[in-house]
Amino acid sequence: MTRRLLLGAFLFHPGGAHVTGWRHESAEPDRHLDIDFFADFARTAERGVFDTLFFADGLYFWDRFTSGIDHYSQVRPEPLTLLAALSVRAKNIGLAATISTTYNEPYHVARALASLDHISGGRAAWNLVTSRYDEEARNFGGDSHLDHSRRYERGAEFVEVVNKLWDSWADDAILADKASGFFADNTKLQTPDHRGEFFTVRGPLNITRGPQGHPVLFQAGGSPAGQELAAATADAVFTHFPSLEEAKRFYAGLKKQVVEHGRDPERFSILPTLRPVVGRSRAEAEDLAEQILATTPDSLIVEDVSHSIGQDLTGRSADERFAFAPNVDVSNESKSPNKRREWAGQSEQVTARELYARSFRENVVIGTGIEIADIVEERFTEFAADGFMVQSLTVPSGLENFVDEVIPELQRRGLTRTAYEETTLRERFGLERAPRADYAQTVAG
Amino acid sequence: MTRRLLLGAFLFHPGGAHVTGWRHESAEPDRHLDIDFFADFARTAERGVFDTLFFADGLYFWDRFTSGIDHYSQVRPEPLTLLAALSVRAKNIGLAATISTTYNEPYHVARALASLDHISGGRAAWNLVTSRYDEEARNFGGDSHLDHSRRYERGAEFVEVVNKLWDSWADDAILADKASGFFADNTKLQTPDHRGEFFTVRGPLNITRGPQGHPVLFQAGGSPAGQELAAATADAVFTHFPSLEEAKRFYAGLKKQVVEHGRDPERFSILPTLRPVVGRSRAEAEDLAEQILATTPDSLIVEDVSHSIGQDLTGRSADERFAFAPNVDVSNESKSPNKRREWAGQSEQVTARELYARSFRENVVIGTGIEIADIVEERFTEFAADGFMVQSLTVPSGLENFVDEVIPELQRRGLTRTAYEETTLRERFGLERAPRADYAQTVAG
Repeated sequence: MTRRLLLGAFLFHPGGAHVTGWRHESAEPDRHLDIDFFADFARTAERGVFDTLFFADGLYFWDRFTSGIDHYSQVRPEPLTLLAALSVRAKNIGLAATISTTYNEPYHVARALASLDHISGGRAAWNLVTSRYDEEARNFGGDSHLDHSRRYERGAEFVEVVNKLWDSWADDAILADKASGFFADNTKLQTPDHRGEFFTVRGPLNITRGPQGHPVLFQAGGSPAGQELAAATADAVFTHFPSLEEAKRFYAGLKKQVVEHGRDPERFSILPTLRPVVGRSRAEAEDLAEQILATTPDSLIVEDVSHSIGQDLTGRSADERFAFAPNVDVSNESKSPNKRREWAGQSEQVTARELYARSFRENVVIGTGIEIADIVEERFTEFAADGFMVQSLTVPSGLENFVDEVIPELQRRGLTRTAYEETTLRERFGLERAPRADYAQTVAG
Repeated sequence: MTRRLLLGAFLFHPGGAHVTGWRHESAEPDRHLDIDFFADFARTAERGVFDTLFFADGLYFWDRFTSGIDHYSQVRPEPLTLLAALSVRAKNIGLAATISTTYNEPYHVARALASLDHISGGRAAWNLVTSRYDEEARNFGGDSHLDHSRRYERGAEFVEVVNKLWDSWADDAILADKASGFFADNTKLQTPDHRGEFFTVRGPLNITRGPQGHPVLFQAGGSPAGQELAAATADAVFTHFPSLEEAKRFYAGLKKQVVEHGRDPERFSILPTLRPVVGRSRAEAEDLAEQILATTPDSLIVEDVSHSIGQDLTGRSADERFAFAPNVDVSNESKSPNKRREWAGQSEQVTARELYARSFRENVVIGTGIEIADIVEERFTEFAADGFMVQSLTVPSGLENFVDEVIPELQRRGLTRTAYEETTLRERFGLERAPRADYAQTVAG
């Protein structure tokens, strides 16, 4: 099998990956709850022959600072309903839903994803997250969030239960035989009867395995606990976009972890996020990046930086110099590298705007279609990536520019395909239909 | 406003309301997880200008008896993903999802239903159930089911929280003003900050009110606790189909309860379930009913009766006479009238087949299109019903026959409409867009 570069169209917010991308001239912030807006996005991604849609999600509204309400486009449809509707509007692309293991029940999640897999003809995927913010805990009966390590323990057991539920029915269990009156063969149904630390779930699931057997499982690979869970269970990981050398180290390290779990590293994809800013010339792209950065009001810059470095700067100007003296514990939110915090700690004095602009620039790739294709190709051929999660800073223009300027160049180089060939998302990811595990529990009777 | 008869196309199982309806010659049991199968059903309902689809659901697989696995078509898609996909395939009909308040979190439910309402352009509805079986408890960490009265207390608080979450955003809160950079007006957002007996939910919701404000709320009106919750909160109730006199008493009593809650009884619809068996002649309809009844294997008759009367008859013949001596407590499952239990208690000796056949006949309406239209008209004009939840015993033939034979007669009599006029489901139910409650909590900042 030729190695082929995988592409996800990652929608961070309906307004784009930049927090105020909704202010860009191409943006349509009035349409963030309009199914046609998302169908347009999906069809643009299909024009670029992307493998999957990938919608971020959160179970909260970030209102700890007023600027979050004032300036941030956080309102969005619920992922499963949205993707189910899109499965009818876009007939080829994968459909990845972000679902938290901390605030859900395995039975609901197994069922909804199996249903999406049936409805979409085998295009369902699950982006497993453990949630990160106290805002989320407070919407589900808690005050503060479950500890980071406990979240991952719960996540690991959650995946185990969901996999068992998905495997309730053998693929030939349903007989639907009108003549004999046998709808199912009861010897081909198994009940998980799971009793673990976090979950007690008897089963069986009331839906059979979908076209993929199991939907594709994505996870973020930021923290050591996340990497460990991903190496043990995921089909693909997305991660941030560091330097080529860092990315190669990460890639080799994680593939090694996958092998240590007795799994095939060629059946495990590593997809760094890519935030392209594309111009017809380098100067045009640089200008565009500056324009996008400039959309963020100062109050949001100050409060976003406050949150990420764990130091309340509210009321200061974005240009006021301050010494790093964290006074809010944000360490439980994420164990991924926190660059702004690192930089703030390295300087004697810094401004919120400097930190904000630096992290913006660190996370984007600015250039012409050919320049960005060069970077993509280098990362792919040097085994720093198996593909990319393309996060458009602005919607729809960011994705459109990528599809118009970068994709043709990648296609010309034979890195990405020019038409959909496989039917299921697993096939596109080089994965067989998931085999069914036999957990040797028989049902009543 | 002329009073107009409301119609729901109630899908009990994908195989129909009769437990083995999937064996009927018209049935397509191989397609029970195929989106096209449900789209065909939705389009047939739209051909009959039904107001809403209405899909029953359960969070379990009934396997306490082997016959449940062997003969019963319980496998089905998850309702929210199914209805979201159908919203694209059928552009007019309402979309009612059955969701349990016992095994869900208000934040998820509020969000998913608001999302479905946006996606469908104002056609979302919620059939609130509290779940009834131990099988469901065991899929969500429990061994046995929450007590009936506690289920309804939890249900009442659940609705309160969901309503508050739906009202997080004023309808003019989203500014999406690119020039000023204000996405929302923070004075028009309120946080529920709910702290009750069952739920602690801060909010706000991360989605705005849909076209309907609140989706239409359906509930079953079987038990006194269910009737009380419905009178206080629901927009419409469905119930079983007793004699005309019983139905009139029920109708008057429940409307009175609605008034006692300070609500408008004309804005509250009572929709008995109707299980039509339609023939071109009375004899043909009677034959069809017998054919459908005969699809049920004896083992399922014995075990279904065992479950409903709470007496384990496993191993007996369906024709063996027995005295009623209940030995299984099923009283917590439902407080709706249990006719089979009543009949078994009234006879000295009875057979499972007799009980099964009697309840089958009690729950169906057999006749020609004109005969069934006569019953429908009588119930409607005598204020025993505001409309009907039509449960086809077999799918698709049951619904097709109703649309072909009964609907034209109802239309001819001016009882039902011949085309869709209103946009939202609330409008069809004579309801205004739900006003937003102000609960006077301000957000951070």
